[in-house]
Amino acid sequence: MNTASEIEPYFLGIDLGGSRIKTVAVNAVGETLEQESIPFEDREMEWAGRIQEMVLDLRMRRGWPVAMGLSAPGLAARDARSIVHMPGRLRGLEGLDWQQYLGFPKPIFVLNDAHSALLGEAWIGAAQGLENVFMLTLGTGVGGAAIVDGHLLRGHLGRAGHLGHITLDSSAKNDDVGTPGSLEMAIGNKTLRERSQGRYTSTEALVRDARQGEPQAKALWQDSVRSLAIGINSLINVLDPEAVILGGGIAQAGPDLFEWLTEALQRHEWCPAGLGVRILPASLGDLAGAYGAARQAILSQSGNVGTVSC
Amino acid sequence: MNTASEIEPYFLGIDLGGSRIKTVAVNAVGETLEQESIPFEDREMEWAGRIQEMVLDLRMRRGWPVAMGLSAPGLAARDARSIVHMPGRLRGLEGLDWQQYLGFPKPIFVLNDAHSALLGEAWIGAAQGLENVFMLTLGTGVGGAAIVDGHLLRGHLGRAGHLGHITLDSSAKNDDVGTPGSLEMAIGNKTLRERSQGRYTSTEALVRDARQGEPQAKALWQDSVRSLAIGINSLINVLDPEAVILGGGIAQAGPDLFEWLTEALQRHEWCPAGLGVRILPASLGDLAGAYGAARQAILSQSGNVGTVSC
Repeated sequence: MNTASEIEPYFLGIDLGGSRIKTVAVNAVGETLEQESIPFEDREMEWAGRIQEMVLDLRMRRGWPVAMGLSAPGLAARDARSIVHMPGRLRGLEGLDWQQYLGFPKPIFVLNDAHSALLGEAWIGAAQGLENVFMLTLGTGVGGAAIVDGHLLRGHLGRAGHLGHITLDSSAKNDDVGTPGSLEMAIGNKTLRERSQGRYTSTEALVRDARQGEPQAKALWQDSVRSLAIGINSLINVLDPEAVILGGGIAQAGPDLFEWLTEALQRHEWCPAGLGVRILPASLGDLAGAYGAARQAILSQSGNVGTVSC
Repeated sequence: MNTASEIEPYFLGIDLGGSRIKTVAVNAVGETLEQESIPFEDREMEWAGRIQEMVLDLRMRRGWPVAMGLSAPGLAARDARSIVHMPGRLRGLEGLDWQQYLGFPKPIFVLNDAHSALLGEAWIGAAQGLENVFMLTLGTGVGGAAIVDGHLLRGHLGRAGHLGHITLDSSAKNDDVGTPGSLEMAIGNKTLRERSQGRYTSTEALVRDARQGEPQAKALWQDSVRSLAIGINSLINVLDPEAVILGGGIAQAGPDLFEWLTEALQRHEWCPAGLGVRILPASLGDLAGAYGAARQAILSQSGNVGTVSC
């Protein structure tokens, strides 16, 4: 057992993902003390039990954290104590009061996963020091979040930053939330099979073939990247960022994404100051959400509970 | 001449529009003392001379205002002392230091006209009391501005809120700032002749014919309103407002706009809280910008110079 002198006060960030739970324990200056990532099946609140075990294990070894933040899919309550809206998946998450559930002596700061990922990137990742920045997470779907004039854009119901749900083609069919021809449908993995007439199920394979000059793959990838550029262009006109951060599996395509995208964006972007907006890869990978939650835990101790800052 | 006891301290808001200059003089609690609107021709900085005369006239009658705000097209400088970017029109406006030009003893708070109009509506108009709201001004083009989490969304270069420049049809041609198939092109008066194959040059006439059941007019108006609904839907997913304010000449269409729009929006809007976002008509008409500028003048006296609040 550790003695008191060995135990450094720590802050805990938990990120409940679609199939994994990630935790980071950090000290007050943001140094990572430990991190963990475990898989779960989305059945009978298995994820909740797993989080309970992870917290208990940490508590045994390090005592309670000074403060805790939790990032999860869905819309966070205005009082940041629970997720209030998450239909379809993670049954039991809606309305779960995490402080109560984990028996923690203080409120646990609960926030939307995309918001949390950007806050993580703004803290110690690609968005550090940026007052105006938005992030797109390109994976199965397209997630998003924005920091504007130095603050996380939360909105009235906590749904602000659903940047994948902007229309690019108004005559196409509606996506999951009713948006016709959305950015998510134009580049997310979930529509790739349909977009490629059944040829591809992973963007990675598509990009590999496109890189090798396979004409159909090249045309499809080019088209997807052009759509992304047009979506980013719209969002630039609305949000006016210094930089755009791209994360998620599709952003792993590297130059095959970033170079093509920059070229496509140049055909549309309005550059009133003469320079285009920088497009940057996310740098925290799938730990961004956990770091964002840890950051909120730290901020919650400095009188910022109830607000979301970066 | 007025005696000192008759002269009430006042704040001055000036709005430099496309063809008219509007001023409002208000007292510290926002009561309008007087207002004026005069036309100008966009040649040889006539507008600048007119503003100088209006300010001089007021000064003769009321003395200097306590503070002054000025709203104008283009992007406002970060220090809010001038417009830094306004290509094409109002030659001489870019970089003009208004404090210096008008010989005023303090900085004059300069802000973008769409931003100012929303701040006016948020102060004493349709957006009063709303923490998350955006406004679209439907006229020749489509202007916009947003207040998010209680603050005007300004962005990195002051261009945030260019809500008319989001893509609705990515295969259509680029608009003035490079955005393909933009919201502005789908409903702004500037494209009406083209959209109606030369039949209409004013939306008012189109709406009148649509109301009377003329099939082609009805189809075109319905299509325009559907595009507006899809644009608003995208912006709701990005900004998550409590309400959307519609101003400008096209918003004068009343129920022919608002009822059709609400119906079209219902087919797309994601309503996580069960209720749709309210769509409201602007209430200050073409004085919104002047009121917003006056409001900034008042706020600039309470230690808010350099920030833009509502």
